[in-house]
Amino acid sequence: MTAETRPVDHVIAAIRAFLGDRITTNIAMREQHSRGEDTTTPVLPDAVAFAETTEEVSQILALCHRHGVPVVAFGAGTSLEGHVTPVRAGISLDLSRMTAILDVSPDDMDCLVEPGVTRHQLNDHLRDQGLFFPVDPGSHCTIGGMCATRASGTNAVRYGTIRENVMGLEVVLADGRVINTGSRTRKAANGYDLTRLMIGSEGTLGIITKIRLRLHGIPEATSAAVVQFPEMRGCVESVIQVMQLGVPVARIELLDEVQMACCIAHSKLDNLEALPTLFLEFHGSEAGVAEQAETVKAVVTEMGGLGFAWAADSETRNKLWTARHNAYWAAIASQPGSRGVTTDVCVPISRLADALLGAKEDIEASGLSAPMVGHVGDGNFHTVILVGQDDPAALERAWELDRKIVARALALGGTCSGEHGVGLGKREFLEQEHGMEALAVMQSIKAALDPKGILNPGKMFRN
Amino acid sequence: MTAETRPVDHVIAAIRAFLGDRITTNIAMREQHSRGEDTTTPVLPDAVAFAETTEEVSQILALCHRHGVPVVAFGAGTSLEGHVTPVRAGISLDLSRMTAILDVSPDDMDCLVEPGVTRHQLNDHLRDQGLFFPVDPGSHCTIGGMCATRASGTNAVRYGTIRENVMGLEVVLADGRVINTGSRTRKAANGYDLTRLMIGSEGTLGIITKIRLRLHGIPEATSAAVVQFPEMRGCVESVIQVMQLGVPVARIELLDEVQMACCIAHSKLDNLEALPTLFLEFHGSEAGVAEQAETVKAVVTEMGGLGFAWAADSETRNKLWTARHNAYWAAIASQPGSRGVTTDVCVPISRLADALLGAKEDIEASGLSAPMVGHVGDGNFHTVILVGQDDPAALERAWELDRKIVARALALGGTCSGEHGVGLGKREFLEQEHGMEALAVMQSIKAALDPKGILNPGKMFRN
Repeated sequence: MTAETRPVDHVIAAIRAFLGDRITTNIAMREQHSRGEDTTTPVLPDAVAFAETTEEVSQILALCHRHGVPVVAFGAGTSLEGHVTPVRAGISLDLSRMTAILDVSPDDMDCLVEPGVTRHQLNDHLRDQGLFFPVDPGSHCTIGGMCATRASGTNAVRYGTIRENVMGLEVVLADGRVINTGSRTRKAANGYDLTRLMIGSEGTLGIITKIRLRLHGIPEATSAAVVQFPEMRGCVESVIQVMQLGVPVARIELLDEVQMACCIAHSKLDNLEALPTLFLEFHGSEAGVAEQAETVKAVVTEMGGLGFAWAADSETRNKLWTARHNAYWAAIASQPGSRGVTTDVCVPISRLADALLGAKEDIEASGLSAPMVGHVGDGNFHTVILVGQDDPAALERAWELDRKIVARALALGGTCSGEHGVGLGKREFLEQEHGMEALAVMQSIKAALDPKGILNPGKMFRN
Repeated sequence: MTAETRPVDHVIAAIRAFLGDRITTNIAMREQHSRGEDTTTPVLPDAVAFAETTEEVSQILALCHRHGVPVVAFGAGTSLEGHVTPVRAGISLDLSRMTAILDVSPDDMDCLVEPGVTRHQLNDHLRDQGLFFPVDPGSHCTIGGMCATRASGTNAVRYGTIRENVMGLEVVLADGRVINTGSRTRKAANGYDLTRLMIGSEGTLGIITKIRLRLHGIPEATSAAVVQFPEMRGCVESVIQVMQLGVPVARIELLDEVQMACCIAHSKLDNLEALPTLFLEFHGSEAGVAEQAETVKAVVTEMGGLGFAWAADSETRNKLWTARHNAYWAAIASQPGSRGVTTDVCVPISRLADALLGAKEDIEASGLSAPMVGHVGDGNFHTVILVGQDDPAALERAWELDRKIVARALALGGTCSGEHGVGLGKREFLEQEHGMEALAVMQSIKAALDPKGILNPGKMFRN
């Protein structure tokens, strides 16, 4: 078969008819779309298409569907699990130019955005209206990508994940049909929950082209604090107790002594030491925030915390949370030229100490460097296992360590992924986690909605 | 075809082999399972089967699947939308004997229950452990039924609906296979959200046999209050403002002057008058509760509220909320021998005044009696349109009024059902609300999971 007769070439030509130079086979652009921020083997898409409207996405999918050409949605390319790697080539459908904030309703505290809007862009836009969007993965990711991977972040412990903050979606189906899901009401009992089905479906059931988000009022008062601990157990036991007391903390983040060393170096946190540390934030009224902080202070003091350092002014707070959001990059920077294999387990809160201290033992035994950081109020933590760019043996050891950490989390009633998703990297665990029959149900839904299997093939399921 | 050769008779005989006298064709029992608390035309099932284990449910479904016999799950029979009416006869599968509370974990604030457990039974069981389950429809419904219909109630404004309070399910599929969905973690990004797909699927995708619920700590402090208003506008505008201010009210319920007259008579609320009224509850710390109440007091005062009557002690509070939960029965009792057609619209909070005052005009114009009560913090309100038991003309007028109220809610960006579900009564609105294509997606999922269409046929979809 010559290159000209391949279905994908036919599709590229047909797309070019309406996208013009917004579809490209330029090698540099294809390389840029060959994987995300992960360690998967890059695969070049046949072409990269930059869609700017729902209609264009619909036309592209209709064409790909007709000709059986794979389509992989691409946002900011920050996936850590291989979601955007086009393992079967085809079209990388880049939505990062769909950046319109279509409406904001302060009265109903919601907004409608296109999928390429980033959380930073949205929050900059909202600030003057006294509103904010809380879901904050540690990257410059797009809202579309966050929906597709069921993302969360540091605020989820109080405000929920993207799942709880999306009211409805516009989705283009595999064959180009466009549907609207959900409603603008706070609740509804009006048919199957297609919104939640699409959230976390990782581009395998449809392409999200509009998102209606729930917003939140900027709290009257905000305060943040840092507590360091001489050893990890007191640190993690503090988290468990704070959660069990029902304190409505806005953020409660744990960084181990290895991660703290990275952050101190990378983000110039000169007043802190390389010790197990909690970063905390409280939202509410002035009195409410003070009350929450008092309760937490009593807990951490009892657990051996070394003081309770306030980050009272917004500048200090911003520095703290910027450091936290840059934790991944701080880890990478600690070993120049390395990449990170990121674990993402999540366990019931009562098992957090077992999962986390066990993971630290596994890291120790592996001989690898793996800073640890976590959204511990949700029972979710990451290790960034550092490996050299061209060290396949170390990469294999990193995956081995990942498997060990996941196996322990599953044995403790947890999940392989709290927020990064399945993609390529976590497929092997799904069967164990859900069982064969539940996985078969997921696959029957996939077959019903994407009978030709063109949407992000090879992801989530192994077969 | 003689009665003996019908597939259903074969199935009944096969089920009798393992259920014994827990499957019955007794006419009184079939009548009891011929509809819920609604005004649909009763239809007798061919038999009623009382399952006591997942294994039995699985065997029954496998048999019904093989022989193409309809199965309608039945819990407490409190549906208001015809969910349990076996419109195509078959087996009414009664799960009300599956009442085990299998485990409660105070450390993880969750529990595992069978579907026949009622919310009252669960809360009685939990009380000594300082925990509660917040979702509270106004009836003695089962947790399984609440999951199937995506139920909520008075606490949803603060604690979310059943959707936000279910962590995972055990579900028997149409062909008898058993799956487990979800996880015990607070969040997960590990595959399609089958839990949320089953929640609100009204027995059309599978039969729920176990439910893992999220629990909440009994708040340190609780206070309740009643505010009456000379006219409805101030009452509903107060609600909108309280919600827009972000006050975390635990409950904010509106009763119009007609409903109040019913409740005063039925529940002996002698100190209250037949005026538009808000019932409020605040949860939190002592200081937090006082702060919330102060904010709300300022709002209602500005809106013309006639004082702010505290229900400080738990006895007064219980009387108040029992009256609220009995509102439906109070409405029915106001016209002895009547039945109620219940509307259940829900709108974005900014449109609540338009929806509610418009509905009152529609009621006025209809000449029917229809007390109004609502979970207004969520934008959700009900009218109980009273019609005589044997008055088909009045029933038709009631449905006409229902259609008008729904049409206005849809035009305001709302939904036909906030919490009662679709069943038979709201099918006609789904297409308008979701569009043909989204409805087609729902139906393709239905076809994938229940290819023979045995699970609660005739519900949710018109064809």
